[in-house]
Amino acid sequence: MAGKFYGVGVGPGDPELLTIKAKKILEQVPWIAIPVSGETKESLAWAIVADLLEGHGEILKIHLPMSYNSELLEKSWHEASEVIGGKLAAGTDVAFITLGDPTLYSTFIYLYQKLKNQGYPAEIVPGVPSFCAAAARAGISLAENQETLVIVPSVYHNEDLKEILNHFDNVVLMKAGSNFPLTRNFLEEEGLLDRAVLVSRCGLPDEMVEFDLTKIAEDQVGYLTTMIIKKNGVHKNGLFCWRWSR
Amino acid sequence: MAGKFYGVGVGPGDPELLTIKAKKILEQVPWIAIPVSGETKESLAWAIVADLLEGHGEILKIHLPMSYNSELLEKSWHEASEVIGGKLAAGTDVAFITLGDPTLYSTFIYLYQKLKNQGYPAEIVPGVPSFCAAAARAGISLAENQETLVIVPSVYHNEDLKEILNHFDNVVLMKAGSNFPLTRNFLEEEGLLDRAVLVSRCGLPDEMVEFDLTKIAEDQVGYLTTMIIKKNGVHKNGLFCWRWSR
Repeated sequence: MAGKFYGVGVGPGDPELLTIKAKKILEQVPWIAIPVSGETKESLAWAIVADLLEGHGEILKIHLPMSYNSELLEKSWHEASEVIGGKLAAGTDVAFITLGDPTLYSTFIYLYQKLKNQGYPAEIVPGVPSFCAAAARAGISLAENQETLVIVPSVYHNEDLKEILNHFDNVVLMKAGSNFPLTRNFLEEEGLLDRAVLVSRCGLPDEMVEFDLTKIAEDQVGYLTTMIIKKNGVHKNGLFCWRWSR
Repeated sequence: MAGKFYGVGVGPGDPELLTIKAKKILEQVPWIAIPVSGETKESLAWAIVADLLEGHGEILKIHLPMSYNSELLEKSWHEASEVIGGKLAAGTDVAFITLGDPTLYSTFIYLYQKLKNQGYPAEIVPGVPSFCAAAARAGISLAENQETLVIVPSVYHNEDLKEILNHFDNVVLMKAGSNFPLTRNFLEEEGLLDRAVLVSRCGLPDEMVEFDLTKIAEDQVGYLTTMIIKKNGVHKNGLFCWRWSR
């Protein structure tokens, strides 16, 4: 009988934010597939679970380049599906770990589709997304009552952001590090500088939560950076509150 | 010393989708506050963790009416903060449980603000949102690569939805049950009927995952219903795939 392919979300950074189910599966499977973006790069997802899983399954490194070259990506996914498919065909389960949740901006879904198309049993185990953890650490809501929420990936233009903020209440900017200076300028121009919070390396020892964006130096914001913009947010008594609930 | 107030997300329905941290806190605190919307209504959040927590902390029922009357709501939150504040002042920790994640459409945030304003230590423990679990069960991504994702609460109009789908790639409709027939008509008119999936009572024994919306009877969709619309989604070989990854 073929093994089962699991896509397991390991959450945003704090190992305690793994789900009970994720922990159980990772402790059981003989193979844990970890995505690495280059020969020398460490997997962040692996760093989260390394201590927890000491002595459990064997590691299967999956090389997935950070690229928008679809030919190169297709080749990588094909190779990865061959390697993982080999283990599944041999009857052993494989769990592929992803940062946060597997259904949000993870290349996992391509592997899932390929392997499912080949007839292997597969299951996605959801995880806590980074933006939920970022909001929790900042002590704010992402959306409440009848509000809308827009999740925007790393690549966006300030014109798009302006349009989004015209129509929606709350915006999460994923991987906000690379665009940070531009976004800050934009928020200043729009008079929204006090409606945002930046959370960097959420749940990790060097976490930063900063409501005053003018205090942030460019080199403080790396890959694991989330910005939350709340159009209806206001600061009051040192707390970030909402208009209708004051 | 005052007790600590925890807001704990218990995830979408499956008790195994609690985080390790949530489980630990709920097993430790002397008081577990559970939201109930009326005297006779059971708390869904409580149903999720009841078995897990047998023999642990005592229950503190918090009556929060399902209402948009802000005066009534303010009164309820005030009363709830008094009750919980009393326990905290006495030096005992209190954990308030919420379905899914505490920062997404939960009235918890008002209690959090009130109690934090009163000087009590407070912490939010994020959870797996229902829409991540719904996508996982449906075997689809919520967003990938450079795609956007919009989360829309229960109250919306089809004109808004049309506008959203003109500009964004993926849409999650929370509590999609009440509007279901209207939404289905709209999707049919727009030629998007095959771009959606409906997930009801995700992770519970009577879960339903249905890609063919024409098969769903109105009385099958209750309170815990999520619809995911993927503008770029296509069906292929019985799988829900995406254009650029075929």
